[in-house]
Amino acid sequence: MSNVKKAAILGASGYTGAETIRLLLGHPNVKIVALTGHSNAGREISEIYPNLLGRNLPSIISWDEVDWSEIDVAFACLPHGASQETIAAIRSQVPTIIDLSADFRLADPALYEKTYGRPHNYPALLKSAVYGLTEFARDNLTGAALVACPGCYPTCSLLSLLPGIKAGLFKPSSIIIDAKSGITGAGRKISDRLIYSELTDGAHAYGVGNHRHAPEIDQMLTRVTGNDDIRVSFTPHLIPMNRGMITTIYVDLAKGFDLEFVQKTYKKAYENEPFIIVSESVPETRHFKASNRFGLGLFKDRVEHRIILIGVIDNLTKGSAGQAVQNYNLTQGWDETLGLMGSAAFP
Amino acid sequence: MSNVKKAAILGASGYTGAETIRLLLGHPNVKIVALTGHSNAGREISEIYPNLLGRNLPSIISWDEVDWSEIDVAFACLPHGASQETIAAIRSQVPTIIDLSADFRLADPALYEKTYGRPHNYPALLKSAVYGLTEFARDNLTGAALVACPGCYPTCSLLSLLPGIKAGLFKPSSIIIDAKSGITGAGRKISDRLIYSELTDGAHAYGVGNHRHAPEIDQMLTRVTGNDDIRVSFTPHLIPMNRGMITTIYVDLAKGFDLEFVQKTYKKAYENEPFIIVSESVPETRHFKASNRFGLGLFKDRVEHRIILIGVIDNLTKGSAGQAVQNYNLTQGWDETLGLMGSAAFP
Amino acid sequence: MSNVKKAAILGASGYTGAETIRLLLGHPNVKIVALTGHSNAGREISEIYPNLLGRNLPSIISWDEVDWSEIDVAFACLPHGASQETIAAIRSQVPTIIDLSADFRLADPALYEKTYGRPHNYPALLKSAVYGLTEFARDNLTGAALVACPGCYPTCSLLSLLPGIKAGLFKPSSIIIDAKSGITGAGRKISDRLIYSELTDGAHAYGVGNHRHAPEIDQMLTRVTGNDDIRVSFTPHLIPMNRGMITTIYVDLAKGFDLEFVQKTYKKAYENEPFIIVSESVPETRHFKASNRFGLGLFKDRVEHRIILIGVIDNLTKGSAGQAVQNYNLTQGWDETLGLMGSAAFP
Amino acid sequence: MSNVKKAAILGASGYTGAETIRLLLGHPNVKIVALTGHSNAGREISEIYPNLLGRNLPSIISWDEVDWSEIDVAFACLPHGASQETIAAIRSQVPTIIDLSADFRLADPALYEKTYGRPHNYPALLKSAVYGLTEFARDNLTGAALVACPGCYPTCSLLSLLPGIKAGLFKPSSIIIDAKSGITGAGRKISDRLIYSELTDGAHAYGVGNHRHAPEIDQMLTRVTGNDDIRVSFTPHLIPMNRGMITTIYVDLAKGFDLEFVQKTYKKAYENEPFIIVSESVPETRHFKASNRFGLGLFKDRVEHRIILIGVIDNLTKGSAGQAVQNYNLTQGWDETLGLMGSAAFP
Repeated sequence: MSNVKKAAILGASGYTGAETIRLLLGHPNVKIVALTGHSNAGREISEIYPNLLGRNLPSIISWDEVDWSEIDVAFACLPHGASQETIAAIRSQVPTIIDLSADFRLADPALYEKTYGRPHNYPALLKSAVYGLTEFARDNLTGAALVACPGCYPTCSLLSLLPGIKAGLFKPSSIIIDAKSGITGAGRKISDRLIYSELTDGAHAYGVGNHRHAPEIDQMLTRVTGNDDIRVSFTPHLIPMNRGMITTIYVDLAKGFDLEFVQKTYKKAYENEPFIIVSESVPETRHFKASNRFGLGLFKDRVEHRIILIGVIDNLTKGSAGQAVQNYNLTQGWDETLGLMGSAAFP
Repeated sequence: MSNVKKAAILGASGYTGAETIRLLLGHPNVKIVALTGHSNAGREISEIYPNLLGRNLPSIISWDEVDWSEIDVAFACLPHGASQETIAAIRSQVPTIIDLSADFRLADPALYEKTYGRPHNYPALLKSAVYGLTEFARDNLTGAALVACPGCYPTCSLLSLLPGIKAGLFKPSSIIIDAKSGITGAGRKISDRLIYSELTDGAHAYGVGNHRHAPEIDQMLTRVTGNDDIRVSFTPHLIPMNRGMITTIYVDLAKGFDLEFVQKTYKKAYENEPFIIVSESVPETRHFKASNRFGLGLFKDRVEHRIILIGVIDNLTKGSAGQAVQNYNLTQGWDETLGLMGSAAFP
Repeated sequence: MSNVKKAAILGASGYTGAETIRLLLGHPNVKIVALTGHSNAGREISEIYPNLLGRNLPSIISWDEVDWSEIDVAFACLPHGASQETIAAIRSQVPTIIDLSADFRLADPALYEKTYGRPHNYPALLKSAVYGLTEFARDNLTGAALVACPGCYPTCSLLSLLPGIKAGLFKPSSIIIDAKSGITGAGRKISDRLIYSELTDGAHAYGVGNHRHAPEIDQMLTRVTGNDDIRVSFTPHLIPMNRGMITTIYVDLAKGFDLEFVQKTYKKAYENEPFIIVSESVPETRHFKASNRFGLGLFKDRVEHRIILIGVIDNLTKGSAGQAVQNYNLTQGWDETLGLMGSAAFP
Repeated sequence: MSNVKKAAILGASGYTGAETIRLLLGHPNVKIVALTGHSNAGREISEIYPNLLGRNLPSIISWDEVDWSEIDVAFACLPHGASQETIAAIRSQVPTIIDLSADFRLADPALYEKTYGRPHNYPALLKSAVYGLTEFARDNLTGAALVACPGCYPTCSLLSLLPGIKAGLFKPSSIIIDAKSGITGAGRKISDRLIYSELTDGAHAYGVGNHRHAPEIDQMLTRVTGNDDIRVSFTPHLIPMNRGMITTIYVDLAKGFDLEFVQKTYKKAYENEPFIIVSESVPETRHFKASNRFGLGLFKDRVEHRIILIGVIDNLTKGSAGQAVQNYNLTQGWDETLGLMGSAAFP
């Protein structure tokens, strides 16, 4: 079919790469024609992910072996730092680049340097990137050449907060985000911190007070409110499950508002969203596994004027590869649900 | 679309029911028009399986509230005993019935009674049922009115054994099947045996020496060899994972054969199978999750003349609902892969 | 030995009962002479907990079959409601009663009724109970006849908060407690909510805005500050591990204080505590499994003047049975570490 | 106390090292005075195992920094190959060496070389080692200078098989061992094969047909029967739990014997064993966690003349460090249960 777009997955052997492949295999308008890797170049992707056996996928090659002139879209699933270099190198040849790394999320090069401990090498390119929190970025996504997909924590936090923040329902200074992530969020690294026996049947916080996703959340809240001083509390935890993320958010209501009004506002804001479910009951990560949905519950706290927002996603899907595909659909002017409507398997 | 078949799922709230729903939601030729339940009648299926929210599914009703005259196919996901009663009651009105229970698997009423501790009430109906181990039943499936889908253990064991047994490569008296199942295999029962805290982080054998799936395995081996005395050793274990099954089978080679010949025989037998993967490496359950595939590895034992067959499936998919859909596709003369080609999510 | 005290465990077949048995089996001064149960009366405890096989434990009997005149101490591991009735019935005969239920934790009968939905039947007895948050109750524990052991969430939260609250370092109105518990915290109930397949590999909040442990936390904070208006935010989550609890607490510093001062205050407050570890690094639940320790980390938040307290316990040990034994040791004037110094097994 | 023996743990930072430390901390006659490590030299053991914090343990040092003249006993928890070198170097100074590695298990240097792919460098030393399958080695353990503790799979398999094999109840040629191990059995290695996300919620066989523990099982069976040709089938599986092991063993009865006689023989053989439980019901790994017990069930198979032996241990305790301590107790002529009677925590 001449309409089918040719895709390359950069960094195919990581978890976000594998999830992007899984989703694109079910996409009617996309064909995967290149998979790249560094240490895994020369191997078949099915050696690393046997679930992908028999899917007619290309072998993993080095990124500079790809004939970029034939690629319509590149999904960059690379570590930060590496991503900007590769994207800078191929951008003149590839009409659409969807970056799943952290390299183009923070618009301010100074903030990038402060957060990631190294200068950004392509500040102009950074400026051109669209921050692809899909539901709040549709206008900018059509025809975009470079999309920076948000981090998993920012996706879950911001989808929880934005309708209320935009409508002025919350006190921005009061936001506390307590997040819990499944262990795929740590990536496919060979490290003593990721050994099964030391992660199963236990839980812990990490990055306390200084996780790199916090400035990304601040940035977006600042953008929609114009309030330069927004700074959220943010504490992530690793819990023994593979996929899934909860953000439990505590926020004080602005004067004059109550939970009922908040709920009405959210239902209206999200009523036509294909992937957002605002529910009366408490959302559970297990029901969102391998799905592109975001689930949200809004609850009254026992402390007056405080409410609790509980957001849930699959960190690898809506928190990464799913949102990336959704963004790509929008860059092409397609139905944004293409390739993303499979039902999650549960249990 | 006039070609779309109307399906009812009987016993929708159990795990095989939920998995059948998940698969049929992605089936191009089937629409789910009725869900039945006993204690859950009157509820929405999404109250039990929130992953199914927003899928336009009917409410759960009692089986006698269904207008059976409009149903093209019933998938019976009922407990044994209950299944035969309901099927007997609706069979004159429903052209195709796919039974996922144990009620029509054993062709001999006496064996059924001995195995399940109660007489079979519909021996004539029993006789008419097609035993739907798909890859070995295609000739009988076309146009079948009642298909008995094999149990999960027999599916995994028989797909491992049959090509070799049919070709006379193994000594039938030597078969030992050591099986390991994920916990969804125990169903969605409210029981102190299924409490999370008593099943996680540990493992155990059960039904040692007398599991009900063993006679089903004997029956099929007897059928293909004509050898009345086949009786396998079979020991299942429950291990702390949700989905997945391994059957590790030890078998002595018949005189004159070696592993290489066995491998050649299997590769030939299964070369055109869309859901069977005969691999060099050891198959792992995690790569088959939510997929209709069966993975098989064939290995030389350290004891001469003995080989080891390692088969892997998802007990809820190829071991139950997936095989059921595959069988239904064949009763209708459709491509048997319809609705079954989604890639498993891993990790 | 004439010094050995005779213990009865009421409600032995629940998880707190089993943990109390495990700990007392290693206690030099205590011998278990009676185990009681309701539906399990007549059974051996080792039928339910095979790990207790061969330990010379008595059979489970009904509580009214016990010869209470020979009992020195009763550990009541009963459901709330049932606990007060049994305790009222046996108290004249049993010199020391350690209650692990919720029945004697809230000193105000009106608050008990509001929280548990039924009136307290023994308000005078309630008044006499010592609230056994050990490290803050030693003076009252010596010779106490009835000790109410705190809930697991209050134990972890209050040990985190009290040194700072007592020293006036925190703004009491700012306390937000986000808690995560292992699944044994839900008890050994036969319920569809506790099925393995629906709890593994996923997480969720529960009791949002109205969990019964919140008033217990308020009560103790109010007691030490004399501030009637303290009301904490408290949201518990269930995560897929057996034992363990984290309370992540966000609190604003009172004017003039900083993290360094807070750390100094805590180290001093807890310097001689045998079971409390104030550490520089983030505590993880897995390192506290089956131990009576409480681990605490104190961290600077990225929001100025806010700090994060991360407390960790084993919900069944320090959060229940361990603290109960520790309290009993103190009622007898013994070394409080007796029976509690076993090293946790990890991994 | 002058009677207290001074222990060094070689390779303290691995899982068997950590488990040995845990057990010795509760041992009345042993004090840990040295911990050695290679890459971890210079660190505190509590940095790696925070559960060991506050236990007055020495810092990890290099093995050549130890003053071996003051050491009474060395527990060698080193990788094979490294273990023999270190033991050879210190043996003249250390009266008792308990080796937990594989280096001294196979009495025949040629078999060692064939199995481990390298020659054994100390064949004379190999000859002097006592194979410490405790219950069948007591006579040789008293005063032994070098004890080779069996592998976890051989321990569980041989304790299951030996009473029957010694009494001639089984056909030695018929033995098939299907084993399942928790993931700590793979050790504390930094490897992509041990990443949490790729081991949780799934299972697989490994080392099919050629696992290194199989010759060790053959050797012991050969030793007690004098039958040179014994060669067992042995297939291990990794399942998603931390600790625990099951060996499911299929064996044909020798002529004239039945299950009842087998059970009687085992009960008699094991009646005075402090750590062996022969039970009517199926043993489960979870009830043996962190305990030095071995549980055994003996069952009739559905195939005539075949029986099924189901053995269960904790791979790190009875399968390694627990048996090592038990062996050490016997070398000293002490009660062999010293330090090993703690009750397992369950759930």
